[in-house]
Amino acid sequence: MEGEPTRIMMGVNESTIKGYPHPSISSRGAFDWTLKKIVGSNTSGFKILFLHVQVPDEDGFDDMDSIFASPEDFSSMNRRDKIRGLHLLEYFVNRCHEVGVACEAWIKKGDPKEVICHEVKRLQPDLLVLGSRGLGPFQRVFVGTVSEFCAKHAECPVITIKRNAAESPQDPVDD
Amino acid sequence: MEGEPTRIMMGVNESTIKGYPHPSISSRGAFDWTLKKIVGSNTSGFKILFLHVQVPDEDGFDDMDSIFASPEDFSSMNRRDKIRGLHLLEYFVNRCHEVGVACEAWIKKGDPKEVICHEVKRLQPDLLVLGSRGLGPFQRVFVGTVSEFCAKHAECPVITIKRNAAESPQDPVDD
Repeated sequence: MEGEPTRIMMGVNESTIKGYPHPSISSRGAFDWTLKKIVGSNTSGFKILFLHVQVPDEDGFDDMDSIFASPEDFSSMNRRDKIRGLHLLEYFVNRCHEVGVACEAWIKKGDPKEVICHEVKRLQPDLLVLGSRGLGPFQRVFVGTVSEFCAKHAECPVITIKRNAAESPQDPVDD
Repeated sequence: MEGEPTRIMMGVNESTIKGYPHPSISSRGAFDWTLKKIVGSNTSGFKILFLHVQVPDEDGFDDMDSIFASPEDFSSMNRRDKIRGLHLLEYFVNRCHEVGVACEAWIKKGDPKEVICHEVKRLQPDLLVLGSRGLGPFQRVFVGTVSEFCAKHAECPVITIKRNAAESPQDPVDD
């Protein structure tokens, strides 16, 4: 029963509360769960594909004064986003190396739920694992949930790992 | 990284088309997928808990002439149901023994979606795996789907494995 390793795609994102590229609580939780409950000691049986989707700012001027915006500012913002994304992925790739699980990691820009479903179609993983904040129906109306959309539309089996209640920040919309 | 095996609960049911207790196409598909993609060669890392929920007949007279119903008929029907359920579970238990994965199996009566969520609460598996017919929205209105309910309400991560399109019977509501 050796054969090809099972390819698990994971969507990962940054924390909204911890500043410089820390993984979100739910991304980290989903990753830890996957290592513990699915991979276990069978490290050669799996390969993890980390996908980080960056949402382009509406106007690109989130945290700088628009008066000083110039083409150079744009390219430096792009560089900065790229570096943040790489630092985020570095966390997961390093953990995989420690444990001895093969992995790949890449960054895309766009609407996370659309991009994730598109990448599933393109790469055909065996399984998609997503973390979720486990929001109630009232909060969901306002923030939407990527995991709910992907569970319905992704063309492969999907596991959604809800965030551990003990780890939820004060505002459950944060992560 | 040895420790406790990962406990996977699977809801399994009978085929609606093949007569005497064959597993449904979607139950068999979900089981095969789990063995191939999750368990792999790591047979000691997992334990599978098979739950078969039998829906009680509304009136208990589905396939006999009600004029002849007597208390003995009822108890023989119950026996017959029990035997069918045991035969169904035998299929899965035998496959697990062949592969060398530990398992348990049991039968409950009631509404499958409610019973499955209740058993998840009681036994706290690490993961619930369910097969699904992958019906479209129109068909779903009429037949309901156990997997959709459980994905939303079960208190553990859930994977839904859609039936292979090539294996779908002529009427997709059959299984």
